Amino acid sequence: MNIVIIGSGNVATHLALAIKNAGHTIWQIFSRTISNADVLAGMVGAEATNDCLALRTDADIYLISVTDGHIADVISNMPQVNGVVAHTAGSVSLDVLSRFSLYGVFYPFQTFTKDKVLNFREVPLLVEGNLSVARRRLRALAEDISDYVQKSNEEKRKALHMSAVFACNFVNHLYVQADELLSKAGLSFDLLAPLIRETTQKALSMKPKYAQTGPASRFDKEVINSHLAALGDDSLSYQIYQLLSESIMQATRDE
Amino acid sequence: MNIVIIGSGNVATHLALAIKNAGHTIWQIFSRTISNADVLAGMVGAEATNDCLALRTDADIYLISVTDGHIADVISNMPQVNGVVAHTAGSVSLDVLSRFSLYGVFYPFQTFTKDKVLNFREVPLLVEGNLSVARRRLRALAEDISDYVQKSNEEKRKALHMSAVFACNFVNHLYVQADELLSKAGLSFDLLAPLIRETTQKALSMKPKYAQTGPASRFDKEVINSHLAALGDDSLSYQIYQLLSESIMQATRDE
Repeated sequence: MNIVIIGSGNVATHLALAIKNAGHTIWQIFSRTISNADVLAGMVGAEATNDCLALRTDADIYLISVTDGHIADVISNMPQVNGVVAHTAGSVSLDVLSRFSLYGVFYPFQTFTKDKVLNFREVPLLVEGNLSVARRRLRALAEDISDYVQKSNEEKRKALHMSAVFACNFVNHLYVQADELLSKAGLSFDLLAPLIRETTQKALSMKPKYAQTGPASRFDKEVINSHLAALGDDSLSYQIYQLLSESIMQATRDE
Repeated sequence: MNIVIIGSGNVATHLALAIKNAGHTIWQIFSRTISNADVLAGMVGAEATNDCLALRTDADIYLISVTDGHIADVISNMPQVNGVVAHTAGSVSLDVLSRFSLYGVFYPFQTFTKDKVLNFREVPLLVEGNLSVARRRLRALAEDISDYVQKSNEEKRKALHMSAVFACNFVNHLYVQADELLSKAGLSFDLLAPLIRETTQKALSMKPKYAQTGPASRFDKEVINSHLAALGDDSLSYQIYQLLSESIMQATRDE
């Protein structure tokens, strides 16, 4: 298929590479910043443009992979095209694309970092379409790059996105907090590696609620208070420690 | 060496098995609940007791591995012994053991679940002692069961423990939250597996602060507000989402 990609960020980059590697042709990469478009276009042998009106109208699929806040803007500036137009966002309605005749959602459920290679075949891809022809075309592309393609709907996609914010974005932020605590004591984050590995492995091999350990799950107020005192009550870390401990205690009581 | 273990919980169980497997002899397992002592004693070929005064006084090392709140109680009830007495807690002072002549801390830095086998050789073990003879004896035992033995002190041990609460206990609680969101939408936690694996791998291969992604790190208020609305402001999940997003935005601004 012939594909146009709108965007040049993390998701756009990983998608473009996976699509190119699956043997499809990427005609154009659009980015408001032409130098960004140039870099990605160079990687996948496409034409770079920063002019919405220069987009070809005869591609099979247009993937809009820009930050959520720019999706509406991109859509209103695009020419009327014949292919299927899909965005890649977890929490943006399918309906924002209704000015096109064929449209959908192409949502890769993974965290992407530009310089980190990852195997796209293992990335779950959720597909929605306004008509079955749109859905089928997106699904065909999805199956060429991933082994975990799933039909979705707005409600499920949003639940997935929210769960990803908790299990990925927020989890990473807790690693950042842990890293800071260790730095302050002159210790390396590497010391945490076995613990982090084991925590992850446990969560993937049993229901996470049965894997809960730590002072809060033991209602160990003495340890909790000594940690809070060390964090200092003017810090966000203090508030995070307090709130998450409270939430763990509530979950433990509810069981 | 001849070892006495006080406690029969997760940590006591994993320690006892590792020590036994390293070829040492476990003389006694103490637990206030004799049936718990019996189970662990049976696994490591030791005598079970629920009577502090029945503890032998001539073991080389006594490991106190009970919940933090019970450590003081156990210590005051123990007979005066000749060996090194050590507790295994992350956030309890070494000084609570000062009624003994040789004492220390033997802190395994890992999360333990009773029924989950783990390779103790990969568990970092932090050792402290009141005198070098105590420290040396504990270190010798530590090196027999782990490849990552490190001399510690009170301040470092506390920082490590706190970082573990963030990177392990709190992380697991976020997995619990994600699991609940998915359940409500009729989706399986397994869908999150690739994302969780990638998040972990990224945190271990780069500084976590450079791996931060998600709506908050993009200051994407629209997505954040739509997620908050879906969570409902009477829930702890709502508060967690709000506070962690705020903290991510602050960390992103500070960079």
